[in-house]
Amino acid sequence: MNSLNSSEPPVFADVEDAARQLDGWARLTPILENSVLNETLGCRLLVKPECLQRTGSFKFRGAFNKISRIPEADKPAGVVAYSSGNHAQGVAHAAALMGLKATIIMPEDAPKAKIDNTRALGGNVVLYDRYTQNREEIGLKLQAETGAMLVKPYDDPFVIAGQGTVGLEIAMQTEALGVMPDMVIVPAGGGGLISGTALAIDGTLGCPVYAAEPAAFDDHKRSLESGARQTVPDDARSICDSLLAPTPGEITFSINGRLLAGGLSVSDDEALSAMKTAMTSLKIVVEPGGAVALASVLSGKIDVAGKTVVVVCSGGNADVEMLARALSM
Amino acid sequence: MNSLNSSEPPVFADVEDAARQLDGWARLTPILENSVLNETLGCRLLVKPECLQRTGSFKFRGAFNKISRIPEADKPAGVVAYSSGNHAQGVAHAAALMGLKATIIMPEDAPKAKIDNTRALGGNVVLYDRYTQNREEIGLKLQAETGAMLVKPYDDPFVIAGQGTVGLEIAMQTEALGVMPDMVIVPAGGGGLISGTALAIDGTLGCPVYAAEPAAFDDHKRSLESGARQTVPDDARSICDSLLAPTPGEITFSINGRLLAGGLSVSDDEALSAMKTAMTSLKIVVEPGGAVALASVLSGKIDVAGKTVVVVCSGGNADVEMLARALSM
Repeated sequence: MNSLNSSEPPVFADVEDAARQLDGWARLTPILENSVLNETLGCRLLVKPECLQRTGSFKFRGAFNKISRIPEADKPAGVVAYSSGNHAQGVAHAAALMGLKATIIMPEDAPKAKIDNTRALGGNVVLYDRYTQNREEIGLKLQAETGAMLVKPYDDPFVIAGQGTVGLEIAMQTEALGVMPDMVIVPAGGGGLISGTALAIDGTLGCPVYAAEPAAFDDHKRSLESGARQTVPDDARSICDSLLAPTPGEITFSINGRLLAGGLSVSDDEALSAMKTAMTSLKIVVEPGGAVALASVLSGKIDVAGKTVVVVCSGGNADVEMLARALSM
Repeated sequence: MNSLNSSEPPVFADVEDAARQLDGWARLTPILENSVLNETLGCRLLVKPECLQRTGSFKFRGAFNKISRIPEADKPAGVVAYSSGNHAQGVAHAAALMGLKATIIMPEDAPKAKIDNTRALGGNVVLYDRYTQNREEIGLKLQAETGAMLVKPYDDPFVIAGQGTVGLEIAMQTEALGVMPDMVIVPAGGGGLISGTALAIDGTLGCPVYAAEPAAFDDHKRSLESGARQTVPDDARSICDSLLAPTPGEITFSINGRLLAGGLSVSDDEALSAMKTAMTSLKIVVEPGGAVALASVLSGKIDVAGKTVVVVCSGGNADVEMLARALSM
């Protein structure tokens, strides 16, 4: 990948390159497990808590891998991004660290915590209506007006490679623990995190990688089953605000279609229940969308008996009301 | 320290020895921070989340450092411990890992989650009344009857040295971040965690270490001010169930009286409010007693302007009702 504007799918070496770029900038999140939970489930469940990453989700990785490579001459124009919230915060923070202006297009119904935090991180927030306006069009228009570089939320090789460092860390950390995972389960929205992670796992552990999604947004599951990108209906709704991309990305699916073992989907209540378990058993705060991989295991969507399973909890930027709702499950 | 029954205060080398003993058994908890929170506070706040440690608190460290050294011949008699909950879980888990039976004496008003988890970890739980019965007497009696080794919650050199590995990790991790802390603030109940940590910080960073306590259980603060161990009134109450030891330990205070810079105390509401901030900003679940060091900074109990401050969040074993109460602050 020579050009920052490349739309070539990244390969394993690009994920390794991203790890070098992120060294000293991204946080090495730990691997967590709970022995009582393991006994209850009859498996060894290893949790990669990206909610503990800078800005509260894995999105900082991809954003930084892209933004930190912008040449000096192009910096004054800044960057622009559209996001339901986590990418917004990742881009705003990465841009601020690199001294760039960031304009972020966010849906007006995004969790207040995400909007507030994006502003606090220095992002200039522009709100839009998720159900009547097209965020990609708004992004392209702003980009054309200002000359800013568009940092896409998932369909970008540098963003995908950056997110893939989650997978490299899983490989490194499970090796240090002396365990060989039987599978890795990763939340999928646009597919950036899971495609990068799948590249990393393919180049290291070689075990199956599954996508986890909200039941109403099971476009990856259906796309994997049919072999072509599927779209969810316009009236689909879920509390998993970080996973509402209606269809898999083009670049991400060119990777995911080849590398993923399948898709698992969970109800909103199952995601809420997993958030509660994350708080009480693992002592981490996970947002609804961040909890779907954990939820898929806890609600028995896949046979894990006797296996070692890694789930990524991808983010923790939930409003207080949503956390309280999860605790009441 | 040659004998496992020694009551000599440990020294820095004992903490280093504990780190070797715990290597591969205790989890290396990360250092967390939130850039928006830093900006709000006007300091750099680094959080050591021991709620993410095995069994949900730092207590596993001390328990394992003691129990893993029990000679083969003494193993069949097992171990006995008294605890409000976190030490119980640490001892039960360390004993199970080493193949020993563990009998745990717990107050009947301890959080249900702590009692349930201690049982789930394999501990044989014996309940007592915190306000009318003396747990040390019960412990000594059980020990005499069974020949089990008593694992004290704090006044034991091996337990103190084990907890001190938290301080060694703080020194190592802040060095890796390229920062030099101006102070370290640690919750204090019996004083085991803070005395071990103070030994570690004294042997490495050399910065001031402060004790944080519930206002009603400010025995360390008053003991440090008067130079002699003080006791809280019998009718003292706090929601910080893990910090209800009425007086500093004898061995722990022989270290703390010499090494600590002072004490800070917070109200129960300030602890609850810190729990909320821990959930929303740091994405970690902290119990009331585990949150007092964080609370002391958030509620302005010490001037942190422009400084780099490390706070230990010592545990996360709270009932769901307590978490919900914190979120409603």
